[in-house]
Amino acid sequence: MNTIITIGRQYGSGGKEIGRKLAEYFGIPFYDKKLLTIAAKESGICEKMFESYDEKPTSSFLYSLVMDPYSLGYNSGNFEMPLNQKVFLAAFDTIKKLADQGPCVIVGRCADYALKDRDDLLNIFIQAPIEFKHNRIHDEYGIPEEKIKSHSIQMDKQRASYYNYYTSRKWGDARSYDLCIDSSTLGIDGTVELIKKAVELKEAR
Amino acid sequence: MNTIITIGRQYGSGGKEIGRKLAEYFGIPFYDKKLLTIAAKESGICEKMFESYDEKPTSSFLYSLVMDPYSLGYNSGNFEMPLNQKVFLAAFDTIKKLADQGPCVIVGRCADYALKDRDDLLNIFIQAPIEFKHNRIHDEYGIPEEKIKSHSIQMDKQRASYYNYYTSRKWGDARSYDLCIDSSTLGIDGTVELIKKAVELKEAR
Repeated sequence: MNTIITIGRQYGSGGKEIGRKLAEYFGIPFYDKKLLTIAAKESGICEKMFESYDEKPTSSFLYSLVMDPYSLGYNSGNFEMPLNQKVFLAAFDTIKKLADQGPCVIVGRCADYALKDRDDLLNIFIQAPIEFKHNRIHDEYGIPEEKIKSHSIQMDKQRASYYNYYTSRKWGDARSYDLCIDSSTLGIDGTVELIKKAVELKEAR
Repeated sequence: MNTIITIGRQYGSGGKEIGRKLAEYFGIPFYDKKLLTIAAKESGICEKMFESYDEKPTSSFLYSLVMDPYSLGYNSGNFEMPLNQKVFLAAFDTIKKLADQGPCVIVGRCADYALKDRDDLLNIFIQAPIEFKHNRIHDEYGIPEEKIKSHSIQMDKQRASYYNYYTSRKWGDARSYDLCIDSSTLGIDGTVELIKKAVELKEAR
């Protein structure tokens, strides 16, 4: 097996679980939030910064200003690269280094775009209707019943905004990925099986 | 095999060929433009009308007026349903009747939406980068080299406009389908194999 699998996913769709199961099956590393810890160590930027900017929208100048007034250079008298951009680029570098080490599964963080020049890549997007995501959002993330819908819309908006800002692609648009799957159609395990088949077919070409 | 497969597709992506190969493999009917002939016969509306409105944009009142002034009731003194809507609804009815007859493959014409209340449905979208679509558009559709890019953009715009107008979904958005595949990733035959696997996994649930 010599494919790098990236997984973009709707909140609660099971993308993370699918990624973890694929990594286990193929015996390859799985990177999710862990990626940020590595990026923090490598860049020397405080890990808390990575957490606070992780997959959050950064599309407006105003937002950037509110989150990080120093980006305007008020500390040094010079205009500097905003902190969110620095953090993003550090994560980008880490993704590239990890991919150079061999096959792995990377969830979120625009990994598909960071690695776009590689041809050993399989870019996947996982989504599902709210009825399917409901229990996962409630049980795994502890979101109360009445807030599940609005919270999941908000989370997906953040992910879309982050992705659309930092890439030249559109989050959740079929054209951005090799394969998009509704995880409710085949279930989590069925979706894992389908991706295994896709890897097999891609490597047989 | 008891699944109805619908295929939405970018122009030149090979969606039609993939659909035909799946229908051959499963030994089930394949409906593409043929569907319009059946709809014309069943509705009594002239077949030429179906061809002229087939997957064409109809999103503006003005367009409808230019194409069909009688939709404003100038013939009868009454406001009638525009002809494009009548034609669409007739095709819709035909799709439903064909699906009631058993498993089949239907390409385009919003079949996924027409059949949305069925659970024996697998909705697929096929797309690919322009480099992959290039030869097909040139050889199969006879589009001259210098017009391939603009013509394919135009065709996809028409299909998107038709789909977005008549359904509550978005053409080419992962959330509208069970499965979206970049046909350049696995090739036409690899994509056919992956869809066979998806049908098998869906029916095993």
